[in-house]
Order: sequence, then structure tokens, then C-alpha cells
Amino acid sequence: MPVMRLGYVHVRVTDLDAAINHYSNTLGMKIMHQEGGTVYLKSWDEHDHHSVIIEEGGVGLVKLGYKVTSSDDLAVFEKRIQQFGATSERMSAGENLKTGDGLRVVLPSDHVIELYTDMEYVGTETGTLNPDPWPRDQRGAAVHRLDHALVAAEDPALVERFFYDCLDFRPAERLITDPAQPELIGTWMFCGQTPHDIAVIKGPNGKLHHFAYWLEDWNEVLKAGDVFAMDDVSVDVGPTRHGITRGKTIYFFDPSGNRNEVFTGGYQTGPDFATITWTADQTGKGIFYIGRTLNEAFTTVFT
Amino acid sequence: MPVMRLGYVHVRVTDLDAAINHYSNTLGMKIMHQEGGTVYLKSWDEHDHHSVIIEEGGVGLVKLGYKVTSSDDLAVFEKRIQQFGATSERMSAGENLKTGDGLRVVLPSDHVIELYTDMEYVGTETGTLNPDPWPRDQRGAAVHRLDHALVAAEDPALVERFFYDCLDFRPAERLITDPAQPELIGTWMFCGQTPHDIAVIKGPNGKLHHFAYWLEDWNEVLKAGDVFAMDDVSVDVGPTRHGITRGKTIYFFDPSGNRNEVFTGGYQTGPDFATITWTADQTGKGIFYIGRTLNEAFTTVFT
Amino acid sequence: MPVMRLGYVHVRVTDLDAAINHYSNTLGMKIMHQEGGTVYLKSWDEHDHHSVIIEEGGVGLVKLGYKVTSSDDLAVFEKRIQQFGATSERMSAGENLKTGDGLRVVLPSDHVIELYTDMEYVGTETGTLNPDPWPRDQRGAAVHRLDHALVAAEDPALVERFFYDCLDFRPAERLITDPAQPELIGTWMFCGQTPHDIAVIKGPNGKLHHFAYWLEDWNEVLKAGDVFAMDDVSVDVGPTRHGITRGKTIYFFDPSGNRNEVFTGGYQTGPDFATITWTADQTGKGIFYIGRTLNEAFTTVFT
Amino acid sequence: MPVMRLGYVHVRVTDLDAAINHYSNTLGMKIMHQEGGTVYLKSWDEHDHHSVIIEEGGVGLVKLGYKVTSSDDLAVFEKRIQQFGATSERMSAGENLKTGDGLRVVLPSDHVIELYTDMEYVGTETGTLNPDPWPRDQRGAAVHRLDHALVAAEDPALVERFFYDCLDFRPAERLITDPAQPELIGTWMFCGQTPHDIAVIKGPNGKLHHFAYWLEDWNEVLKAGDVFAMDDVSVDVGPTRHGITRGKTIYFFDPSGNRNEVFTGGYQTGPDFATITWTADQTGKGIFYIGRTLNEAFTTVFT
Repeated sequence: MPVMRLGYVHVRVTDLDAAINHYSNTLGMKIMHQEGGTVYLKSWDEHDHHSVIIEEGGVGLVKLGYKVTSSDDLAVFEKRIQQFGATSERMSAGENLKTGDGLRVVLPSDHVIELYTDMEYVGTETGTLNPDPWPRDQRGAAVHRLDHALVAAEDPALVERFFYDCLDFRPAERLITDPAQPELIGTWMFCGQTPHDIAVIKGPNGKLHHFAYWLEDWNEVLKAGDVFAMDDVSVDVGPTRHGITRGKTIYFFDPSGNRNEVFTGGYQTGPDFATITWTADQTGKGIFYIGRTLNEAFTTVFT
Repeated sequence: MPVMRLGYVHVRVTDLDAAINHYSNTLGMKIMHQEGGTVYLKSWDEHDHHSVIIEEGGVGLVKLGYKVTSSDDLAVFEKRIQQFGATSERMSAGENLKTGDGLRVVLPSDHVIELYTDMEYVGTETGTLNPDPWPRDQRGAAVHRLDHALVAAEDPALVERFFYDCLDFRPAERLITDPAQPELIGTWMFCGQTPHDIAVIKGPNGKLHHFAYWLEDWNEVLKAGDVFAMDDVSVDVGPTRHGITRGKTIYFFDPSGNRNEVFTGGYQTGPDFATITWTADQTGKGIFYIGRTLNEAFTTVFT
Repeated sequence: MPVMRLGYVHVRVTDLDAAINHYSNTLGMKIMHQEGGTVYLKSWDEHDHHSVIIEEGGVGLVKLGYKVTSSDDLAVFEKRIQQFGATSERMSAGENLKTGDGLRVVLPSDHVIELYTDMEYVGTETGTLNPDPWPRDQRGAAVHRLDHALVAAEDPALVERFFYDCLDFRPAERLITDPAQPELIGTWMFCGQTPHDIAVIKGPNGKLHHFAYWLEDWNEVLKAGDVFAMDDVSVDVGPTRHGITRGKTIYFFDPSGNRNEVFTGGYQTGPDFATITWTADQTGKGIFYIGRTLNEAFTTVFT
Repeated sequence: MPVMRLGYVHVRVTDLDAAINHYSNTLGMKIMHQEGGTVYLKSWDEHDHHSVIIEEGGVGLVKLGYKVTSSDDLAVFEKRIQQFGATSERMSAGENLKTGDGLRVVLPSDHVIELYTDMEYVGTETGTLNPDPWPRDQRGAAVHRLDHALVAAEDPALVERFFYDCLDFRPAERLITDPAQPELIGTWMFCGQTPHDIAVIKGPNGKLHHFAYWLEDWNEVLKAGDVFAMDDVSVDVGPTRHGITRGKTIYFFDPSGNRNEVFTGGYQTGPDFATITWTADQTGKGIFYIGRTLNEAFTTVFT
């Protein structure tokens, strides 16, 4: 499975200062670079130069970056993407700050994803020589790393097929209308060993539902929730458990309205993982296992 | 502080079998005795004969029992209660199953509480000789013990004064309308070292908001939430943190609609504890710290 | 039960700067006052002026302070102590910094304990108006408050009787040689609702085994352990669980060799609590439940 | 990275009944098949037929099985192994119960590992249709799945090179004697996204140090420790944190003396992970982060 992980998320924000405060002081990311209205940030347990890019002006997703193991993989992907009928173009080192060559792809759902093999290595905040398990000077929720993104698509099955056929992603879990005549409502797909690196649910093309950060455990989820209260962060739902992915979660919004998530838990996947099916009558339980009802925002707010 | 703790809660339920299933299989209490339509249950870490009594027929609170250290304390309380102008009567051993002499009091809010000094000792499920820290054969959420109750009163200040003057309870936290001309909306009062043994909020006289069980920690709260999902328990709010008491919580309903809570956390109180004040503009944060909004049920559903 | 809690611990340290660093940066206490070679510190969730006093010169326990509800209680205690045959003397406000009148007692085991009713109120770090559940700027292990102390005595039964007869403490757990002809090896006694406010084990008179701080839960115990590794604190045993008290713990030493503990868990006690008995053949399990063996230091290192 | 994971561990035990009790009642695995003196067991979150095989007679490691994505990968591995100069032979479906074709390899350290692509699918205990996050009827420590193994080798660097060159494993962490003239003492290698799927430390060829099970979090580690005390399991070290891998752990022995581990935590690895180096002077901290000293058993007991 030659895609390694979600490497970066690039979003627009209406108020850059508020966003900087949110992503650095509340979430605890480190500001790596600022240039005009664009800010690059990194979590403490990430080693590449940045994982979140915020750009002033509007709101919503600009693009997602997925890091790929090798140039050979890129070449294979390029061919498959052409065969699939999706649009892609080569991008050069330096088009994205500190980022190498790659492939820019427009998904059938109009989202832009970039596949790249290199980003400048910076190192984690604990280092590589006799490291401590966490940095002493953590800020706020102290998110560890980017984990996954959930995007909307008018035709989730088509996007699932794209990731399956072109990029070797596999579905860990699928939400369908009805076992007899199933129509796909959502799919949670992995390229590594976690439950999902990308997820797609039915909704307006090109839109973002949320992107998620990894935390250590359920106690760090509570700590994050406390920090959100202290910092007046708008909390959407949680803390709670997901039925789908088994994860533990809080959904919340950045000051511009982009939905974030803190996430932990799940299980180990891999090429032989048997896909889990959720039926639409159990959607509430699938999304928010404990309360078992969707709030309205979950299905209506995309950016 | 001569009142030891909330010793029992006696509630009515519409469907006895459903209630038995809820309190024993989902919450993990042990059935100690059944007689006609009345069932007596005990949590694993409680040593007295029972702590919850469910009685078929209707819904809502019958009475609360608070265990008192000595007969001398009872006599003192009786006098103070008369001076206060509340109604009380002596009750005899055996009026309540396995329970000794005591005093039955009608609060200014029409709730009945019983003060008693003895209940048959049964012992916890881990015993008193080289005990393990928990019983191996736990069921469901495996609640440890009863913790507190929250009742409604048209005049919370009057009920607060009753508990303060007559029973030596002290307020750990108070929710008021306005610091300038404060009117009391709610009070959380303790007789021991936890944040609350009784709480009172503005609402219809004689009604119960919820009674709560103690769990070990935030992880047991999640486990309880998972069990509630498995057993189709109606969850009101949570898991979340309370601002008031700092506790970690899930509110949920028994099959008849009586609200229960699983609760942990808090802090240590005592006679010299400095009362915390919450102002009405921070009510959402006080009740549900992370989400910072009250759901409608919280202020409207009493039984 | 008119003794409220362990209010302060006063110990000697060989190196004041190292001790200040340990108690403030590693444990997270706040320095409240320094005067000559004596430093007064407070934990974030304590409201009185200080709870730990470190004094340069030597090592070991100077005295313990227990806070008492009222002057009337003090008078009662004084009489009982005289009847018991122990030595006591009145102490005046100001003999101890920011501390009111009281009674200085020499235990049958030669330990000095001071009973007092007042210490200057400073307030916790979260305050009493719409407080957050924890202070944002925590340091190190961020201990919440003092919890209990364990002292050594040649005749533990005699000291137990002192606390029982004179101060209304009750034993939550007792470790005995043999159920047939029991001799007391250790006793864990409470004055409030936690498993212990003082504990006594067989050992040299006048010596301290450890004093303990409260943490929130098992996760905070791990965090403390991590901080101890980062700060090169000498760890004695843990993290592990105690059989006795059911607590979760790490024992460690301050730079002068005084043993500290971080502690959480336990259960609720009270006047009707049925004492738990541990037999000597289960001592290992009683002290360190998981490993079930005592390390040598546990029974030999006192200060 | 075409090796998916450690699929099974096959060990010898002196007392089969005691071993069955240990692996099923204490650890919570399910007995899938018994045939003569050989028993096959599965953890609740594993979907293949079995992951642990215990065989009566002696003690110690028989072999490890690593599951491989495809037959093409097997063919590639076979060639590389021949080039490397290690011994391998094809094995047929059915040589191992419910297990398909594969390759049996003798490592330069004399350990036998089997690479295979198929094992009969049984499914997890939570299933694939609207699953709960955990099975209601868990037993004992309720281990989730096999995680990794640590074996001894006279020449760890040679075995590391074997896994690197032949099977595409990468070292997450390496313990070396001295940065100037480094000699390898231990290596922790991954084939997926966790810190290690195999680890090798200096010691006698052909021997096992331990194999490890995955738990959810630090709280499940404590629960496991409690269960070990209840069931008189011999605990080696823990609960504690590892410096190396950042994991949380207890080492313990099965009744025959094979060392097991319960493990959780760590971080996400992948092809671009920057290897962490530990120097020998920090070995204590690397292995047991909190106590910072190795117990003697750690470096002397292999089976």
C-alpha cells in the first residue's frame, strides 16, 4: 500500500489571527513559517516541515496532500488515474513550500489532492536520540499528528472506486442504505494500518466535513474538551465514541467554521481486513455510538 | 458533620421487569430482595443491604434515605427540624426493610427524606479479608456505589437553608442569577468530603432531577456509555465534564424515565471549603463544561 | 469526625535548592514564602496558605499538621490526650507561619503532630467564581493536594489506639501477623471519607515512611512517572496498585531522600466502614498488588 | 511493505492445562482447536483462525508466523533470502492448521519464521455488521490481538540486516553501545505503521525474550495487572512505560516460564520514519522509562 498517510491539509480561514491562535495555542501546533496570509504549522509528533496550511480569505478546503513512498509509485498512480478518467497534472518541487515533486489530482468529487514523495525533514519535538515520550512544554490540546480527513461527494461510490482502483486504499467500514439494494452513503478507507486515512460521505462535491488530529487516549480527549471550553472553541459533538472506526472523538470548529476533530482509538487494519458494514437504520449509532442520534450540524455543515 | 451519606433512593417505575434489567444487567447492581412489586438492589462496593429500591407503579421519587452517624445526631436533627418548621415523624425499625429506627422528614420542597442510623450489614463484593480491588464477575457498567441526588424545588434557597441549618450540610457550589442581586438557582451541598451529597435546583416541588452512581474514572464513564448503547439505554447528555463539581458524567434514563447519572471526579471538600459561585450567564458551562449549552431535557424533565 | 485532614507536612532537606526544584518544578507546587532556610509551598487545588514546609538541615520529618474543625474540638482532644498519657502543649497563633492557635502533641511514637483550626486562606489556583476544572499553567506532575502520611512506630497498636481514642480516627485497613493471635504490623486510618489520613507501620519511632499527594487518576500517575524520568527523580516503586487502600501509586524520593508518593483511587469510608484485614502472608500483595513482592527499600528506608 | 504483521506465535509449554488456563481465562483468548497436546487460540479482535499455538513438551519458541500480502511477495522474499544466504523451504497448505502455502525460513539467529499468505477467516468477536466496539463477554485481561515478538540473537546486526534486506522491515529504534563506534545491542523493527513487529536483542540464538499482546490503553494495562494478581501470574516488570517505543507495558510469564507482554501506545511509523537511537548509557531508561533500571531477569531469562 504505497500511499503512506495524509500529509497535509490546506484550508482557508476568514480571520488569520484567530486561526493562528486556534491552531497554535488551543491545538498546540507549532508555527513553522508565515508568508503573506499563509501560515504553515506542525504537530509535535510529526517530522515533516508542516501538516496544516491556513490561508486567509474565505473558508473551506483548498487541498489535501497524501505522502507517497516512491516516485515509482507516483508513476503507477498517474497511469491509473488517467485510465480512471480523472484529471491530474505533475507539480514541481517548490510549488508547495518545502515540498518535492508530485502529482495534483482532481477527484471525481472536485476535491484537489496532491500526491508527493518528499517534504523537508524537520524532526519531531522529542527528537531521535534517547527521546522522552512527549515534549515537556506542550500547549493546549497538544495534538500529536494529523490523522485523517472526511470529505463530501455527491457520488461516494465513485470516489471510493477512485481511491480503491487508483491508490490502493481499502474500505474499513461502509455505510449503506439497505443490505438488499445497497447504495453507498459513506466509506472509511485506509492506506496503512489505521481505520481511515480518507473518508467520504454523501454531500456537496468539493466540500470538507472535517480533518482530524490524533491524540493518545480517551483522557487526552477529555483534556482537549476542557481546553476547548477554556478557549471558547465551538464544540460540535463530543466527547463520545464513534461506532464506525470505534474511535473516541470530539468534533469542533475553528474560528472560521472549518470542522476539526480530535480522535484516538480504532483498531489495526491491513490488506486482509474484512470490511465492516453499517446499515442506514444504525447511522446514529454508527456516527455517535453513545448518544445514537445525529445532530443537525453533522449532516449539513460542510466547508 | 453527622450525616454520613446518601444511603438509599426509592423510586417508582412503570415496568418492573424492564427496571430490574436496567438496574441489574446494565448498571450491574445485585438484586438483594424482591417482595411484591418492590425490588431492593445493592452496588458491588456498598456494604449495607441495599441502596436502590424500585417499586412498580408510576414513576418518580418516593423518598431518599440519608444515613446518620448516631441516635444522638438524630435527636439533635429532630429538634432543629421542628424549630425550622418542617414536618418530621419518628419511624420504627422494620418500617423499611432491614433498616433501623429513624426520622422521616418532609422538606419545604415536599420531598420525603428519611434519616436512619442502621441498615443490615451485608458487606461489599470484595470482602474484608485480603480483598481484591474489584470483583472479577462485574456486570454492565458495574457502578460502585450511590453518590448523590439532585432534586427540584420552587424555592431552592429555602431547601438549602434547611440542609444547612438542620443537617449541617454546606454548599460546595451555588448557581445564582446575578452577583449584584443574587437569587439562588441551584445549590450543590455536601455532608462529607465529596462535592455533593444533595443538590437542589429551581423546578417543581417534590420532583427528582436525577440520582447518581460513582464510577472509578473517565474510562469507566466511557465503558458505561458503551454499555448504554449496547443495551439501548436512553442517554440524555454525555459523556462530558461538569463545570460545577468538576465531575465527569453521563446522564441517562431508566426505562420508566427516571434520570440516572454515572459520575466520577470532583475534589475534596470539608467544613472549611470555600463555596464556589457560578453566575447564570455561565450556566451552560457550569452544567456541561465542554459543550457549554443546556439541552432542553435538562431543565424540563423531572420525575 | 472533627479532624478534617492532613494540613501540612514539615520535613528537613539537605540541599534546599534541589528540594525547591523538586517540590516546585517536578511536583508543581507553588512557592508561597521563603524565609531563611525554610520554604512554604502549596498545591494548586489547596486553599490554605501552604501544605508542605521544607527546612534546610538534615533530613526527615519535623512534624505533621492536622486541621481541626473547631476550637471546641481542640479542647476535647486536649483532655483525651492528657487522659491517654501523651504529651501536649498549647501553641499560639504565629508560632507557625500564617497558622492559628493549636495543640502540639508528641505521639507515643515520638512523632510531633500539630492540631490547628486556622491557616490563612489563599484560595486554589482555579478560584471560586465560574472556575475551570484545572489551571491552564500546570507544572510537572501538577499534584492536586496533600493526601496522607505514613509514619513508623515500634508499637503500631499503641499509636492506632491514640488516634482512635483521642482523635476519632478509624482504621480502614489493618495488617496483622496472624488471624489467630493477631499482632498489628500496620494500620491505615481515616478521619474523613478517604481510606487514610494517617498510616502507621512497624518501624523505628519518630520516623517518616512517606507523605503522599493526590492525583486525579491512573493517567496522571503515568504522567507523574514520566516527569520523574525527565527530572531524574529517584523512583522507589511503581506505577502500581496497592492492595491496601486499592490506590494507584508511585513511591519516589526527594533529592534529600524523603520518600514521597503520588496517589489516587481508593474508596469511600465513614464511621460505619467495616475495617479490612490483611494477613502477613499477603503483605506483598497488600502493599504492591500487581508485583506482590516488597522491595527492600520499602521496609528499610525511613527518614 | 508487503509483510502485514506477526500472525502467530508457536511456543512450547510444560503443563498444558495450566497454559490453557493462562491463555484463555487470564488473557482472555478463545480456544479454537485442540489436537493432542497442541492448542490453538485467538484474541477477540483477530479475524484469522488463531494467533497463538501452545504445544505440550518443554518450553520456549517453536516458531513465529508473519502474514504476507501476496504470493508474489513470497516469491520475491524467497529469492532475497537465498541471496542473503539464509535457509528457506516452501511449505504447503495444511502443514499448519488452517494455514495456506508459505515459506519456512531459518534466521541467521536459528529462529524459525514462517511466511504465509492465508489462514482460514473466522472473524472477530464483534463481527462485521453494525459492530459494538468490544464484546460484552470479555474474560480476564481481554487482550485484543497479538502485537510483536522480541527474540535474542548473538549478532543482532545480522538479523536486522536480514529483516531489512529480505523482508523490507525498517528499524524504528536502535540501541547501540556507543555513538562513536556503534555496535548494535538491540533493534525494534516494523513492517507496518506501529513501532515494532519484530525486535531483536543481543542474547542466545534461537531464544525468545517475549511476545506481546495489544491492549487499548494505560487503563487496560492496569486492569491486566489486577487480573494477573488475582490469577497468581508471575509478573516480571510493570506496569511501566518503555522509553523505546514509548509503549506502556507489563512483562509477565506464562506458567511454563515463557515471557508475555501486554502493550499499548507507541506512535505511527512508515517508510519515511527517522530511526531513533538509544545509547547504552541510557539502556535502563530506554527499556523501563520510569524506574530507569533493568531487573536482572530482563537480560537473563529467555525461553
